[in-house]
Amino acid sequence: MLLRYADFRARARVRLPRFVFDYVDSGAEDESCLARNERDLADCHLLPLCLRNTTKVDTTVEVFGQRWSGPVGIAPLGFSGLVRPDGDVLLAMAAAKAGVPFVLSTASNARLESVRAAVPSASTQWMQLYVMSDRGIAEQMVRRAKVAGYGALVLTVDVPVSGLRERDVRNGFKLPFRPSLRTLADLVTHPGWSLSMARQGSPSFVNLAEGDSQSSARLQAALLARAMDRSLVWDSLTWLRSLWDGPLLIKGVLNPADASLAVRHGVDGIVVSNHGGRQLDAAPSTISVLPRVLDATAGRIPVFVDSGFRRGSDVLKAIALGARAAFIGRPAMWGLAADGEQGVSSVLRLFLEEIARTMTLIGNTELADLKPRQVVHPV
Amino acid sequence: MLLRYADFRARARVRLPRFVFDYVDSGAEDESCLARNERDLADCHLLPLCLRNTTKVDTTVEVFGQRWSGPVGIAPLGFSGLVRPDGDVLLAMAAAKAGVPFVLSTASNARLESVRAAVPSASTQWMQLYVMSDRGIAEQMVRRAKVAGYGALVLTVDVPVSGLRERDVRNGFKLPFRPSLRTLADLVTHPGWSLSMARQGSPSFVNLAEGDSQSSARLQAALLARAMDRSLVWDSLTWLRSLWDGPLLIKGVLNPADASLAVRHGVDGIVVSNHGGRQLDAAPSTISVLPRVLDATAGRIPVFVDSGFRRGSDVLKAIALGARAAFIGRPAMWGLAADGEQGVSSVLRLFLEEIARTMTLIGNTELADLKPRQVVHPV
Amino acid sequence: MLLRYADFRARARVRLPRFVFDYVDSGAEDESCLARNERDLADCHLLPLCLRNTTKVDTTVEVFGQRWSGPVGIAPLGFSGLVRPDGDVLLAMAAAKAGVPFVLSTASNARLESVRAAVPSASTQWMQLYVMSDRGIAEQMVRRAKVAGYGALVLTVDVPVSGLRERDVRNGFKLPFRPSLRTLADLVTHPGWSLSMARQGSPSFVNLAEGDSQSSARLQAALLARAMDRSLVWDSLTWLRSLWDGPLLIKGVLNPADASLAVRHGVDGIVVSNHGGRQLDAAPSTISVLPRVLDATAGRIPVFVDSGFRRGSDVLKAIALGARAAFIGRPAMWGLAADGEQGVSSVLRLFLEEIARTMTLIGNTELADLKPRQVVHPV
Amino acid sequence: MLLRYADFRARARVRLPRFVFDYVDSGAEDESCLARNERDLADCHLLPLCLRNTTKVDTTVEVFGQRWSGPVGIAPLGFSGLVRPDGDVLLAMAAAKAGVPFVLSTASNARLESVRAAVPSASTQWMQLYVMSDRGIAEQMVRRAKVAGYGALVLTVDVPVSGLRERDVRNGFKLPFRPSLRTLADLVTHPGWSLSMARQGSPSFVNLAEGDSQSSARLQAALLARAMDRSLVWDSLTWLRSLWDGPLLIKGVLNPADASLAVRHGVDGIVVSNHGGRQLDAAPSTISVLPRVLDATAGRIPVFVDSGFRRGSDVLKAIALGARAAFIGRPAMWGLAADGEQGVSSVLRLFLEEIARTMTLIGNTELADLKPRQVVHPV
Repeated sequence: MLLRYADFRARARVRLPRFVFDYVDSGAEDESCLARNERDLADCHLLPLCLRNTTKVDTTVEVFGQRWSGPVGIAPLGFSGLVRPDGDVLLAMAAAKAGVPFVLSTASNARLESVRAAVPSASTQWMQLYVMSDRGIAEQMVRRAKVAGYGALVLTVDVPVSGLRERDVRNGFKLPFRPSLRTLADLVTHPGWSLSMARQGSPSFVNLAEGDSQSSARLQAALLARAMDRSLVWDSLTWLRSLWDGPLLIKGVLNPADASLAVRHGVDGIVVSNHGGRQLDAAPSTISVLPRVLDATAGRIPVFVDSGFRRGSDVLKAIALGARAAFIGRPAMWGLAADGEQGVSSVLRLFLEEIARTMTLIGNTELADLKPRQVVHPV
Repeated sequence: MLLRYADFRARARVRLPRFVFDYVDSGAEDESCLARNERDLADCHLLPLCLRNTTKVDTTVEVFGQRWSGPVGIAPLGFSGLVRPDGDVLLAMAAAKAGVPFVLSTASNARLESVRAAVPSASTQWMQLYVMSDRGIAEQMVRRAKVAGYGALVLTVDVPVSGLRERDVRNGFKLPFRPSLRTLADLVTHPGWSLSMARQGSPSFVNLAEGDSQSSARLQAALLARAMDRSLVWDSLTWLRSLWDGPLLIKGVLNPADASLAVRHGVDGIVVSNHGGRQLDAAPSTISVLPRVLDATAGRIPVFVDSGFRRGSDVLKAIALGARAAFIGRPAMWGLAADGEQGVSSVLRLFLEEIARTMTLIGNTELADLKPRQVVHPV
Repeated sequence: MLLRYADFRARARVRLPRFVFDYVDSGAEDESCLARNERDLADCHLLPLCLRNTTKVDTTVEVFGQRWSGPVGIAPLGFSGLVRPDGDVLLAMAAAKAGVPFVLSTASNARLESVRAAVPSASTQWMQLYVMSDRGIAEQMVRRAKVAGYGALVLTVDVPVSGLRERDVRNGFKLPFRPSLRTLADLVTHPGWSLSMARQGSPSFVNLAEGDSQSSARLQAALLARAMDRSLVWDSLTWLRSLWDGPLLIKGVLNPADASLAVRHGVDGIVVSNHGGRQLDAAPSTISVLPRVLDATAGRIPVFVDSGFRRGSDVLKAIALGARAAFIGRPAMWGLAADGEQGVSSVLRLFLEEIARTMTLIGNTELADLKPRQVVHPV
Repeated sequence: MLLRYADFRARARVRLPRFVFDYVDSGAEDESCLARNERDLADCHLLPLCLRNTTKVDTTVEVFGQRWSGPVGIAPLGFSGLVRPDGDVLLAMAAAKAGVPFVLSTASNARLESVRAAVPSASTQWMQLYVMSDRGIAEQMVRRAKVAGYGALVLTVDVPVSGLRERDVRNGFKLPFRPSLRTLADLVTHPGWSLSMARQGSPSFVNLAEGDSQSSARLQAALLARAMDRSLVWDSLTWLRSLWDGPLLIKGVLNPADASLAVRHGVDGIVVSNHGGRQLDAAPSTISVLPRVLDATAGRIPVFVDSGFRRGSDVLKAIALGARAAFIGRPAMWGLAADGEQGVSSVLRLFLEEIARTMTLIGNTELADLKPRQVVHPV
């Protein structure tokens, strides 16, 4: 029965070949940051208020003029096409139906125009951006995202290089994909997944590689290796601004000093993130740095958060501390693996139900009423 | 040998069908609050005094003009009729014989008048109240409790909605009870329990449902789903006061701010409780918030506590911090499951013996002498 | 190979019937205090000094005008005759040979005069005193101890009643000993122990019971049940003083307030102890309260400590904080069980070697030079 | 696949006879310091900076006028000849090729001149010194090291006596080596190792024992027993200075007071070390004392650190707190055991890659820019 994060993860583990499951599941190096994210959230508690009228609980939140059905969205997820054919579209559709935002990854396996087209009414379709060494790719993508009508641009800033996920190395996971003997056994024992992939063809990064298949493969390899533009600095935001006039967020901030810089550089929002523990394994948990980041921004821009959020109550802890909303990554991916769009919808519904139920239990009918004094935080 | 909480729990586990055991045992969501309650109590220590005359140790405590034999009582326990036929009556009788209070649950399976009648001399029979959407039910119950002579009314305020106990969902536990294939196997492997239930008939919430069996089933379903009156607010206490002139307590307070409000609204006592970890899994442990709640009440009303109390020494830790008494839930229920009234009596005797022994060991012959300075508290 | 506490304990576990092993090994109730003693010592660290001349390391310490070969002694151990015939004498001889004190328990199975006679040269033979309801017993024992020339009297103050050690209850361990079916199996599978006991006869508390065997049995039962004089208070020390003019210590102090009272009542020394976790399971560890107790005594009387000391370095941590010496209980008992007097000697040698080695490693050649600033204490 | 410390350790475990593996792997007494070193490093986190130009990351560091390719070196490793024939030379060559320093142990199994000759270009070849009771040995070694052109002299100050490593005692590991029945079985089951040793001959401490084989054996035994000059004090540094005019470091400092003394006595650098947990098991972790040691030295001399460093990020945590570089011991030894010089090179490459990647991820392109404010330290 799919009642919690662990259930969806277990189902995904059965459905997916090991190297795909591990790609999604793993963290960098010792995977200590991954564990820390979850543990620090569990060690943070909510102090309820009683005897409040909770007849009507309003889980909605306004972000950049849009109203979301709840303070939660789907984080950018690379390679979702490897988990399920058309993964990006399915994620987007589930998010749209649930009334929450979906952030399409640069490393998506569907054209951003197709994803956008699949949910014509969605006003909360966002685009995540990796700026690779060839900045032309980014320029082109931002222009296309603008034409397609994406609602916000989320620049990821915590991947100047890729964190080393040792499980991927052990599994020989790399692109272009070359099956080893071990991977073959993996494929044979997961015929459902293998068949669906055979029908679809190996997923590729269509947004990056629009030309011939050879240059496509080169670009994909570059992306997998994360050959990022390491010269991207705060002043580069001016360049991005010249291409994009909508809301611009940076994702991957942990340092309060950077949060201040973000405000100074006119960024419209930040996402406090350690990339789900997939980049810097020595990074602190996001919930532990959130209060200081919020002090630094002092309410001038909305602060979002991700990494380790597994329950609606986790989301509310961040909201209570002052975050606007939280994004979920692995939970959505496990939902996708478990049951396609339906699975993603289930995961989102679970989060929204838990948020509503927890708000009722703590006596807060509006997210805005939830204040840090209701958080019991060990840090 | 039944020497400690774990022994009674283990015995109950053998005797009860899994879905009944799980109903009593489980906490909400990740069951982290459940574990936290016990762990935080274990991390709280008592600093003894030596060379005091402990020839006479007085474990009694006065509450609302009544003297209890010890600072411990039985918390309201819904569905005790599912654990043992006539569970409510057996619990009440054991408490009465031990000289400690018993709080009858709104969700009892016996008529409150019958429970009251079973222990005519009991002056510490209290009534717990859920106010459901149809306030008429509550009105009727309070009036009946008044007529029956209940000693205090305990309004539960931490269940505007029910916490999600995933074990119940997995077990398909709901009312009206419809046995599944899996439950049937459960019943067959616990013939003792099944037979006793067959003889008794499926337990129903007779206090709520006095009419025809169809409306009864509807009401029961409402209670199981906890279709509570979520518009119940502090000012609603005036309405309750108009129905009840005896001591009125509210149960489920964790926030010091609410404790202050309780005093201001003329409540006669509060029970610091997180519902045994069954409601808000993100809630702090009761022992960790107790000092701040006591600061807020400043001795103006007695403060009680429950959730996670497994030993007489646990009770004394709360007393030392300033609580008047502690209530136990699961321990009593396991006693009931293990050995009926006799089992409950054993559990109560164990608590009272541990309280007396611990008082002797720490050199306090009167509960009132036990002060916070004798507590070594990590928080 | 017997290199550490765990080795001796494991050997003893093999040699002793379960009910005897458990009697020595167990703590009260949940045995949490037992674990806490060891864990808190492990969490306390020593900051070494380097490049000091450690050619000569002096582990000796002066206590009441006597010089001990090291700051460690054997704590009073009841029932050592159950572990090994003549256990008390063997413990005393091993201590005397090692040049460290031995504290004979009131609950010894040898006459105090015999123990004293076995080590005529020992100037560090101390006598532990339980004052039972019949104070005449204590009076008689103190007078005999005085005549026999015991060096100090140690009044135990943490046993107004006995802590409940559940393993003893489960094992049916009580006096007069009546073998059950289960105990019989235990005896048969430990023929070495059974034979030695058969040869010796069941150990009895000869110090208490000098008359006929029936009154002896009654007294023994009283001792096992710890029918202590619970009216013993601080002023009772005057009575003891009238019987005993040598050094008088009280053992079982944890509260700084009691340490102050001890000084005020003219006690010559205190032993910070939680009875090895065998009495109040909710008690804090001794190392955690030691600093505050030392603040309270302010150097006016020597402060000793026991409970959980397993290594020479543990002893030095207490010394560094300001204790004069530490006593060991279970380690000595396991030595006795493992190899008689030889085993106790091995344990003592191990402690003394570890103390000397650790002093060398931390650059302190005199115990008196070791100060709190060399302790890294988490509390 | 050899991706992390645990992989190399596991490989070494397979390749080495148990008594050799244990000699390298074990810590003193309870091995708690060993675990603490690693745990405290894991509990220390790095706060990244984003959007910095990390196109060029410079991992180099200048030490005593030499530039190292990274802030990491190989700590002195006794008995490396037991792990692999010519272990010292292989370690030195791997370090030289990687551009990082190697500290040759007094307890090496190769002549210091041979090791020096094997890497003629190495300017970062350091010599570690034990001063044994016969100071003539040390004098001779220092003079030879000077002639051979070693770059610095590292006086170990935390071994006035040897810590007791119980695994060595259990394995009967001592010199001169006398095989027991158990060791023989160990040798037979590791034929690769046994053959290579048979070819080489049992390793001896050629630096100490240049005369006949009998005196050699005596000296070796002395070294293994660590018959150190315990009269070595701060003023003895004058004597050493008269023999050695190059950089002089002391290794094994944990106490800030000693760090101040080191500065006052004109030492050129200190290594904060607890000897990898092999000496004083009660010692605090090096990362936990590092900040206070750095406060005491106040930047007047470079401070190095070792003990428990397993990852490039561990090294950077120490650098961020203010250390100049970290030394690794066991990781290098496992590399040597796993694959000879190649294995050591792999370990060093891993550390250097992790350092470069982590610097990129935290946005610091120069080690000198990395400041304590980027460390989230629980202490």
